[in-house]
Formats: sequence, structure tokens, C-alpha cells
Amino acid sequence: MNWNILEKNYNKDDYIKNETIFALANGFLGIRGSFDEGNIIGHDGTYINGFYELNDIKYGEKFKGYPSQGQTMVNVANTKRVNIFFDDEKFDLNTGEIIEYERNLDMREGILKREIKWRSSQGKIIRLIFERFVSFKEKGLIFYKYNIIPLNGSVKVSFESILDGGIRNYSNPDDPRVASTSETVFETIENKTLDDDLYIYQRTKRSKKEYGVYLKHRILKGDLTRKRYYSKDDSSSIIFDFNLRRNESVSIIRNAFYSLGGLNFKLFEYLKEKSEEAYENGYDYYLDYQKKYYSDFWNNCNVEIEGDDKLLQGIRFNMFHILNSTGKDGITNIAAKGLTGEGYEGHYFWDTETYILPFFIYTNPEIAKKLIEFRYNTLDKAKERALQMNHKKGALYPWRTINGYECSSYFPAGTAQYHINCDIAISIKRYFESTNDENLLVKFGAEILFETSRLWMDTGFFIDGEFRINGVTGPDEYTAIINNNYYTNIMVSESLKFSVYVYNFLKKNYNKEFIKLINKIDLMEEEVEEWINASENMFLPYDKKLQINAQDDSFLSKPVWDLEKEKNFPLLLHYHPLVLYRYQVCKQADLILAEVLLNYKFDKKQIKKDYDYYEKITTHDSSLSTCIFSIAANYIGYLEKAYNYFMMTARTDLDNHHGNTKDGIHAANMAGTWLGLTMGFGGMKVYNDNIYFEPKVPKAWKKYSFKILYKSRRIKVEVDKQYIKYSLEKGDPVNIYHFNKHILLQSSYKLKNR
Amino acid sequence: MNWNILEKNYNKDDYIKNETIFALANGFLGIRGSFDEGNIIGHDGTYINGFYELNDIKYGEKFKGYPSQGQTMVNVANTKRVNIFFDDEKFDLNTGEIIEYERNLDMREGILKREIKWRSSQGKIIRLIFERFVSFKEKGLIFYKYNIIPLNGSVKVSFESILDGGIRNYSNPDDPRVASTSETVFETIENKTLDDDLYIYQRTKRSKKEYGVYLKHRILKGDLTRKRYYSKDDSSSIIFDFNLRRNESVSIIRNAFYSLGGLNFKLFEYLKEKSEEAYENGYDYYLDYQKKYYSDFWNNCNVEIEGDDKLLQGIRFNMFHILNSTGKDGITNIAAKGLTGEGYEGHYFWDTETYILPFFIYTNPEIAKKLIEFRYNTLDKAKERALQMNHKKGALYPWRTINGYECSSYFPAGTAQYHINCDIAISIKRYFESTNDENLLVKFGAEILFETSRLWMDTGFFIDGEFRINGVTGPDEYTAIINNNYYTNIMVSESLKFSVYVYNFLKKNYNKEFIKLINKIDLMEEEVEEWINASENMFLPYDKKLQINAQDDSFLSKPVWDLEKEKNFPLLLHYHPLVLYRYQVCKQADLILAEVLLNYKFDKKQIKKDYDYYEKITTHDSSLSTCIFSIAANYIGYLEKAYNYFMMTARTDLDNHHGNTKDGIHAANMAGTWLGLTMGFGGMKVYNDNIYFEPKVPKAWKKYSFKILYKSRRIKVEVDKQYIKYSLEKGDPVNIYHFNKHILLQSSYKLKNR
Repeated sequence: MNWNILEKNYNKDDYIKNETIFALANGFLGIRGSFDEGNIIGHDGTYINGFYELNDIKYGEKFKGYPSQGQTMVNVANTKRVNIFFDDEKFDLNTGEIIEYERNLDMREGILKREIKWRSSQGKIIRLIFERFVSFKEKGLIFYKYNIIPLNGSVKVSFESILDGGIRNYSNPDDPRVASTSETVFETIENKTLDDDLYIYQRTKRSKKEYGVYLKHRILKGDLTRKRYYSKDDSSSIIFDFNLRRNESVSIIRNAFYSLGGLNFKLFEYLKEKSEEAYENGYDYYLDYQKKYYSDFWNNCNVEIEGDDKLLQGIRFNMFHILNSTGKDGITNIAAKGLTGEGYEGHYFWDTETYILPFFIYTNPEIAKKLIEFRYNTLDKAKERALQMNHKKGALYPWRTINGYECSSYFPAGTAQYHINCDIAISIKRYFESTNDENLLVKFGAEILFETSRLWMDTGFFIDGEFRINGVTGPDEYTAIINNNYYTNIMVSESLKFSVYVYNFLKKNYNKEFIKLINKIDLMEEEVEEWINASENMFLPYDKKLQINAQDDSFLSKPVWDLEKEKNFPLLLHYHPLVLYRYQVCKQADLILAEVLLNYKFDKKQIKKDYDYYEKITTHDSSLSTCIFSIAANYIGYLEKAYNYFMMTARTDLDNHHGNTKDGIHAANMAGTWLGLTMGFGGMKVYNDNIYFEPKVPKAWKKYSFKILYKSRRIKVEVDKQYIKYSLEKGDPVNIYHFNKHILLQSSYKLKNR
Repeated sequence: MNWNILEKNYNKDDYIKNETIFALANGFLGIRGSFDEGNIIGHDGTYINGFYELNDIKYGEKFKGYPSQGQTMVNVANTKRVNIFFDDEKFDLNTGEIIEYERNLDMREGILKREIKWRSSQGKIIRLIFERFVSFKEKGLIFYKYNIIPLNGSVKVSFESILDGGIRNYSNPDDPRVASTSETVFETIENKTLDDDLYIYQRTKRSKKEYGVYLKHRILKGDLTRKRYYSKDDSSSIIFDFNLRRNESVSIIRNAFYSLGGLNFKLFEYLKEKSEEAYENGYDYYLDYQKKYYSDFWNNCNVEIEGDDKLLQGIRFNMFHILNSTGKDGITNIAAKGLTGEGYEGHYFWDTETYILPFFIYTNPEIAKKLIEFRYNTLDKAKERALQMNHKKGALYPWRTINGYECSSYFPAGTAQYHINCDIAISIKRYFESTNDENLLVKFGAEILFETSRLWMDTGFFIDGEFRINGVTGPDEYTAIINNNYYTNIMVSESLKFSVYVYNFLKKNYNKEFIKLINKIDLMEEEVEEWINASENMFLPYDKKLQINAQDDSFLSKPVWDLEKEKNFPLLLHYHPLVLYRYQVCKQADLILAEVLLNYKFDKKQIKKDYDYYEKITTHDSSLSTCIFSIAANYIGYLEKAYNYFMMTARTDLDNHHGNTKDGIHAANMAGTWLGLTMGFGGMKVYNDNIYFEPKVPKAWKKYSFKILYKSRRIKVEVDKQYIKYSLEKGDPVNIYHFNKHILLQSSYKLKNR
């Protein structure tokens, strides 16, 4: 069962949440797991990665540098909707009687299947089988398949296939985590009905983004008695009528092809041709590719856990959705909610670099590279943003964006999170250390590094020889606009150091490209010297009395929020920000995150002291927190805590821990699960041109395993109570370290577990 | 000339600014100084104090406790508009030729007069005389008077009198200091034309506030040849046609009567009757009252300066507008821009208590009392607000409001300015110390004091025996959400102390009322003990190295903004708030303000050190700043600086120092001028049940004088280079101090100036 998500009953209360759980996507196109036949509840959705509408951000008081336009991922035309009538009675799970019900998401193939035995109020018993998948072979393609069999007598079946361009986004003005308004964003340019096909071509009103979709139908089986067409401004449908006798089936395949449009692009001709090709190749052809694609994916990154199937299911579910939701073309990224819902308006955050990239770096570096490329492609906009924010030079990446422009409207927990800049820089470092991909540094990395480094020099300042950074917000959003956030400062220090390394590396090894680059961006040697100076003399707040690192300059002077007595979680929905800012209370890992990401810089004793202090005041109201606490707990030998936090992380969406899975998956948290397993229990660290493991097994598990791609080698790590085994599944022999013991891994190596 | 504001030429570029300068008001009703005949530029306005429309405050991300509704003072129906045609050519100063022009605001009478000799493009030369005043006798009443004489031949005159209910508010989405949107806010309930009268009755769409206005006409002189009527949904007019021969005049009086409406109130009947009464009594009757009213006002507060007429004019201009703009009924207050423009949406701020109240306390305590009463009348709303802001009890006054509910949308420089609470408390102390009005304490003051004190106990906390207040913003809006703002902490300390005093005073002297009150608000003796404890152990940040008081915990650790090199003022229009927050840079007096308001708590040496430090980093981008620096400079003997800052203050609006006088007067700054003269040059301080003077004369002046009402005595202080003279103009003999020398002032007392 751990390769599948099974739903055995239709439960109306879970429906909206399950639209997210059963969502499918391929990184370009995503559809929510809504019922084909619709439902009076729920919020159906179809999304194209990077496809957004612009909107005015309204402010009661607007200040200099506030972004005036926001971007919202739009819900595009729905192709999954059908209406099915049996003797003119509409099939609907909320009426009639459900005799059997099963929904099954197969994560090895990416196919969602639903089998139902239903009795209409007129007493007709029907078996219905629904299948769908979003193709990895053709990124615009979705297949839907239907099988309908009357089981207790003849029935007239009307099957209406709908192409609905009249959709809207979901909104809730009182929840800061979802969009506040919803309007029709499209104008329909073409809306056609042709033989058995439907076509729509729409353009967003403000961003002027175009897309179209072409929907074809193939009746595999069934006696068609009549065909009817309907068309409105922004939707159309075909109704196929059948007369079925008992046990006679109708089988229909619908293939929908989505594509972006654009100037001089013959969208209709393109889509018609692609759709016909898909029609000709057929369902099974794409399904075979689908199986192969997922098989390769799992082969690179599969994990196993013996002793807890539900947990294993959760981990795989997370990896599955991360793969599906991630843009892989260098011009799109992965939204906080992936392509599964509209929470956070489809925006990309630091989640990508800090949580999701490591997963791809160590399992599929080609995708990681594409995500870094996205940042390169938006570097010019980040430079523009730096100027808007009164910086003389450098780049300031947006806290939330789709197209590269900042669109966070509450700057204390938005733009003020300057750490996005060092998160990106450190992720390049991480990528490079694990891949040695010099090409990325030369083509993209160096320029990003240099421009973000520049920004820090213009943000911070030297005082008494120390470099300080004022007026930023760290990862913890319950503490805002503070001075010398430990996380930010140490991440900046490391990123500046890496910039200097890359500067020297390119100068020596890629001098031609180096010269070209420093000329392009006018980089002076003195600037680099300042980076060294700032990096080496970075101020890091420390409390001598408590002997802990301080989250920022003023954090420890505040009163402690009594979380033991607190009942109103998440605090942000119950307390005004000002109240939160007055206390020592953290939404999420902040200092502890620095200690996890830059683990090689901290000794365990210090991490333990810090952990003991900060754990007590952390609410984990952000889903980005528990995985980090799990990893840190593993470092310092708090195995039970490590296990408990990991368990809270692994099934966050499957078990709806935050109560808002309906708005989409928690993508960063999902990747965090994998980090928790590998960096936490596996004790995997990459630094100083080496890879280290310190595996531990939680009591509850018999055995677990994971795989790491490191410098083109695939290393499998298997851990049980007695033994730890390292296998080289791919690539040349490689040096690894096991609890500081050096091993030259040639094929496999087995050690006793301590 | 120093009793008048004269405009000798019509200058289009000054027109909008002068709409503010020549505005008239009586505390209830205000009209901008727009031309009666209209102008293609400008923004005409008519305002009723406390009359607002509601609007939704839009947030990109909305958090708990954010106000969802804003209030905006609305521009009500315009009665000043007339169209005058000479031989069908519209009179307009932008066409034809202006031969003579003079506009004269007489501040002794509150009358605005305009005399024009104008040649039409057809060559007709006409003399026009316009007069208007807003009555102090009847708060709803405005009189307009017109005299028209053709000087070089016969002319046909058409005089159209308009009642225009189709007006809108001014808006600018990019300036945080004015409203961001403008919509029609009214529905018109009645719009009547009756004989020579016009009437309109309107209701705001959301706040459901009603008002009406009745406009009557009296032709004093002139041969009426025809009358015509026009009426639209929300406006109406009457056209009077005359045939005039050379040197024959037409003289017309219009009286407009405004009133609020409401359930079961026969507004039309009421207004008709009041208008007829006004019509019968006639122009001169109200004018006489007007003169008397202003005469009494000036008699209580007149200042004189020999040696600088422009300055004297500026000071009187400021006092004039403060009087006019202040609500005097206990249910309205004074907006930041008075009743002269729509800047800051007509909101009331701390400006009232900190700047404007002292002026009234020492010249017209009855008005001061009414302003305090306003806060009492909105106390329940402040208690509601405290709960919204997660406080268990107490009252939190709104940073900006009309109806008592918070409507600031940017909380870091809005709601976070909790100091509004202690500003109100300290103003009650100031009022009481100068009036000994126990009645106010019993009726209003004590409850305000107790509830605001409670709030502080729930906001701050004890650490190592010291009381600290985190997460607030002080007066300086270029520094936000900080810990232990010196100003706030010391003001809170003083206000808690005063609360304890009032608690004991009432307990002893008004025990019945005391018992009733503490039962009503459930006040415990232990709470009062905590007030004592907090007050006595208030933490006040001090920098040992610099030997200065620190604006807050972190302020002095920031880099200093180099104001000498800076050219972009006001900074807030050129820099993102985050950038401002990173530096030592002040929008306005903050610590220095505390040292002025609580001057008796500071020694001059310390003020001097603080002044020397903070002056360098203060931009005075707020108009609330220079008057305070002037006063502080006087304390420490920086006479030249005191003089210069005073000069920057005194004519802020007349000379449009901030470039935005068009949006309305800077009311707090205006009152600040008077404070600068009396508290600054006069060295007037009231504390320990005594009044102190330490007068100094700036070099540029020969002599100056001012008057102070103190415990029902009116004291006149005259200062020249040789002598200082104290005269008791009214009341029993009183103890005063002159440079710590005790004087029992019986009639007058003259000393040599040192």
C-alpha cells in the first residue's frame, strides 16, 4: 500500500482537502483531484506553471518601494468536467447511493483511478471507472478515461464533455495566506466546437498571457445514438448519448492538450496537430512513457522504511508531489503549494532553495540546475528591485514572485526577508559542492553570487571592525525588522566567502569568461576585498549568560511567550503581529535552521544548548519548521524528538496537520521530509569536498534506506539495527566518511551499527 | 497688516495652496478658500467636522487585529459656487484681464473679502466684491455677499447660484498622506428648488450619515429681470438676470445653513426655519457676533511681537486656524489638517493632545475640556480596540480616527504608536495642573487614566525589577517597532504616577464617585500597586559612552544617516521604510519631545547633550518637529537655533514650507508656534502646582508679549531687551516664578531683563 494513496469511502468533509491530495501535475500543468462529474463543494483547479495574471496591490498607505502590482497564478480552463446522466438523472455522489467506492493514486505511474458502484434514485446500478494522468511525455497533455457499465438493466446514458473557460480563482479576504480577491481574468479570443473536438483560446486581461486547450474525444466502445453541441462565450460541450443494455459498457477517452500562446504563434493549428498526434498514439503509449519516467525517478531516489508503512507512504507521497510540481525549464519554479492549489497565489519563495533544491541536488541535479537557472533568468529584475529599495547596486531577490518581480505586500514579513539572497547563494554552493558543475558557475552562478554579495555590502555596515546587518527579517516571521539576525548574518558570511572562492576560481580557470563577466557588471577587486572583510568579521550575536547564540540583537531581551498555556494556533491567525513581535516566540526554525544548513560550522554542544532554548519557544506554525528540528535533534542525539518531529513532518498533508491542505500541498515541508531522513537520520553532510554519513535508526523502524547522487555516483545507504551498508549503485569509486571513518566505496561496504 | 492675510495678485500656481490659506471654519463647518466663481484648477471643499464615510481598507495580506474599515471626512455639498455672466461671457480670472485684485482675510473678524476689477474679453470693466464668513453664532451657517458694478457701460448680468451635491473627495494613490481612492459617497434623498431657495438632503452610502443644507438668497440691490431654475439629481441652481447700467450695482446675499440629519429629525423643516431666521436677522447681525467672538478670543490669547510683522502675522494666522478648526462639542475633535483640506483623510491624531491642547489649556480651557471629553466619549471603542489587539483589559486609543475606531492601515507607524495613550493621559494631567478642574477628573479623566494605565501593564513587563515596553513605535516614524522607546517609557511612567495620584485623590475627596467608578471598571487595589511599581522602576535607555539618553534599545547601534549629503526630502517619499529603519535618522523630535513635555524631569546639561546628538540626525520631515526643537534650544540657551527653528515653524503654511499646504493646514505645527513662543521664549512651565517663566528675547525682536490663563487668572507677559513685565489681567493674586524667583502677582510686576 505504500506506493498508493487509497480512499475507500467518499467523505464530503474531506473532499476539498483531497482535491489537493489527489492532484496530478508534471511541472508544467497541474490539475486538482476534483471529481470529473463535479461536486457542489470543492474548488476545482487547473494550473499552468508560471502563468499568472497581474493585479493592483492595494495599500491604505503606500510608501516608496512598495510593489504596486501583484501576480497570481490563474486557474485556467477546466477539461476534467463531464456530466453523466443515467435516464436523465445526473450522476452525483451526493445523491443516489454509493454501493462501492475506491480512489487510488498510484505513485509508481502517476495515475489516478476511481471505481464506483452507484445506485441512482431510480434504482439503476452503474459501475463507473475513471482514470486520468498528466503526461510527462508531452507537458501539455492530460488523458481522461471513462468506463461505464449498467449492472441491473438497460439505461440511457448521456455523457457531456465540457471545456470550461469560465473559471475563477479561489479567494478569502481574511486569510493572509490566500488571495484576497477573485475576478474573471480572461478574455476569450476563440471558442470553437469542431466535430468531436472542443477548443478554447484565452488571454489574461492585464498580463496579456495567452494559452489554449484542445480537447479530443475517442469512443472506444458503446453505441452512440446522438451527439449534441453546446457553446457559450467561454465554454463549450459535446453530449454523447448512448443506449446501454445490462453489462454493456461505454468506454471513452478524452485527451486535452494545453499550450501557451503568443505573438505569431498559430496556437490552434499547433494544438490541433498535437492533439491528433496524441489521439493517434493513444492512451497506452503515453501511459507506458509515464511508467518509465516514474520508474527512473524512483530508481534515483527511492527510500524504504521497514516497520512503518504509513510513514513510508507519506515520504513517497511527498517526493511524488515535489517531482510533479517542479518546473523543469529554467523559466518556471516550484510554488509554495506546487501546482495543486492556489494558496500563496502560486508564488515561489525561498522554499525552493532551502528545502526543495537539496532534494534535487542529491537525486536529480539536472532539475536543481534548472531551478538555479530560473534565478539567473530573473537576475535583472532582482537588480531593478535593489535599486527600488534604494541600494546603489547589487541584486535583491523577491520574497515572493512568479515572474521575477517582488509581489509581497506586507514587507516586514516579505521584502524584509533579505535572506532570500543568501539562501539562493548558499544553494548554488550546495549544488556545486555536490556536482562540481563548473559550467553552472560560469554561466549563471558567478553573476548571481556577485550581485547578491554586492547587495549585502550596501545593506550592512562595519562598526568597530565588525560587519552588521540591520533592519531585516529572518526566517522566523514572528520576529520582524530586527538587527543582526543570526541566520542572515552567518548565511551572508558563508555566501560572501563562496563568492570570493568563485571569483578566484573563475579568474584562474575561466579567465576569458571571468574578464567578460567582471566587465559586464563592473566588478572591482576592492569590492571582493570588502567581501572577505565582511565575511571574516561578521557579527554574530551571542548571549554570554545563557551561553547560546542569539536569534538577533534584541530577541533575548523580550519576555518569553508561554507556549505551554497557549491554545490558539497558529498564532498568526489569533494575534496581531505587533503582539507576536513583543515576545520570544518563533513561528519556525530560525537560528536552528542556520545550524542545520551550515552544520559543519557548529559543534554539537552549542547546537544542543541552542536547541534546548529555542525549541521551547517555537510554535512550528510554519510547515517549514519540524523537519529542521528533526534534523537538529538527530545531530545532538535527541533521537526520540528527532523521530517525533519527523513523524509530524512526513504526513503533514496526508493527515492535514495544518488544516489547510485544501489550499494546496506544503511543498517545502514535503522536501523537508526527505531532508529529515537523509540529513537527519542518515546524518548526511557534504562539505570540504567530502560526503559524510552518521546513520542512526529510530526504535520504531526495523530498517531504512535512501539513495544519494553525489558527484555522478549513486550511493545507496541501508541502515538496520545491526548493520549499515553503503552501496555504489552507479559511477566510479568514491571516498565517503562514516562517522569520520574514511571509506573508499567501490561496490559496497558493510559495517556494524554501533 | 499683521491682522490680515493679503493677496495682491491672482497667481494660478498658488491657487490650490491658497484654498487652504483662505479657508474659513468654526469648528463644525469648514470651507476652503476657493473662488466663488470656481476655477479650472484647485480642489474646492466643504467639511462638517466628524462627518465621515466608511471605506474598506484593502490589504494584500491582512492579519488579525487589522482594522477592516477606514473613515474619511467627506466633502459635502458646495454652496459657495456661483457662475456670473456678463453679456453671456462667464466671469473667470483665467480669461479676460485682471485690472485690480485683492483678497483679504481679516483675522479679527474671520471675514474673507475679495475685490476685483476685471475687463471681459468684450471690453466690459466690472468691479466685483465678494465677502464670506462662517458663523460662530450659528455653527451651521455661512454667509456669502456679492457686489457687482459695471464701470464702463451697461451690461447684462446673469448670476447663477449653485447648490452642488455632486462633489467628491481628492485622492492620490501614491501619496501615503492623502486618501488613495475617491468615489461618490452620497445618495441624495431630497433635492428641492423652492422660490428663491435651494435645498439638498444627502446620506452617505455606508456610514449612513445624513446632512442637509438650505440655501437662501436676498437681492439687496439690482433690477431683477428674470429668474430661472435648474435641477439635476444631486445639484440645483437659480439664475438671476439683471440689466445694469454703468455704475449701477447688484448686491446679493446668500445664506447657507448646514445641519446633520437623523432618524425622526425633520431636517427640511428645521433648516427652512433656521435659514429664514438667518435671513431675517441679516448679514450684519451675524457679523457683529462674529467680531465679538473673535475679539474675546484674541483678548484671551493675543500675542505681540515688535520688530517682525511677518512673523507676528504667521503666529496669529496659526492661532486663527486652530480656533476655527477645533470641534468644541465633545463629540468632535481637530483633524491634522483642521477643516481646511482632506490630507490624512480628516483624521484626528495625537496632535490634539500633544500640540493643540496646551494652547487651549492656557488660553481657553473650556475648549480643552471638550477635546478631553471627546476621548472619554470614545473610551469604549478604545477598550474594544485593546481587546482586538489581544490585551486582556484596558484601553488602546486609535492612532488615527474620526469616530473613535482605529483606521490606520500601516500599523508600524500607526497602531504601534501606543504612545497616543500616554499623550492623552499626560494632557489630562496638564489640563488639571493648570485648571484644578476636579470635575473633569471625576467625570472623564479618572476613567481614561485608569483604563490606559491598565493597557500599559498588559503591554510591558518586569525584568530584573525594571519595567520595559517592547514592540511599539515612538513619535519618530523613521524608527518603528522598537523596544523601550525613551519617550514612550517616560511618558508612561509619568502617566501611571498621575493615575495613582488621581486614584488616591478621588478615593479621599470623591469617595462616592470613586466607589462607583472602580466598581464599574472592576479596578483592584493590586493593579494600582503595580502602576506604582512600574512607574518607579521604568527602564529608560541611556548610553554611558555617549552620555546621552537613547531613543530606544537599539537606536544608537545603527549607522548614522548622513543628512549633510542628503538631498531627497522628505525622506519618506524617497526611501523604503525598511531603509529608513536601518539608520539613526529621525523624522521628528522624539526623545527631545519628551524633554520638552516633561521638562521638569530633566536637567539642562542632559538636554544639551541629547540635543547636540539628536539634532544632527533629525530631518524635521514632520511638521511636528521644529517647534519642539525651538523650545528645547531655548531651554539650553541656544538662542539662535531657537529663533531659527521658531521661524521655520511660524509660517509653515503661509510660506508652504512642506510643499503640501494645498492638502490643508498643519494644525499641530500651528499650535506648536504658540508653544514655541510661550514655553520656548517665555520659558513657561507648569508643574508642582506652580507656574514658572524664564523669558528671553531673540535679537531680532524689540519686544514681545503673550497671555496665559492659569487657574482662572489671565497673566500677560511682556518682554523687551530691558524689562520683563508680568500683569494680572484677570483674577485673584497668584504666585508665579521668574527664573526661580517667587513673585506674588497682584496687578503687575516689572523686572530688569538680565
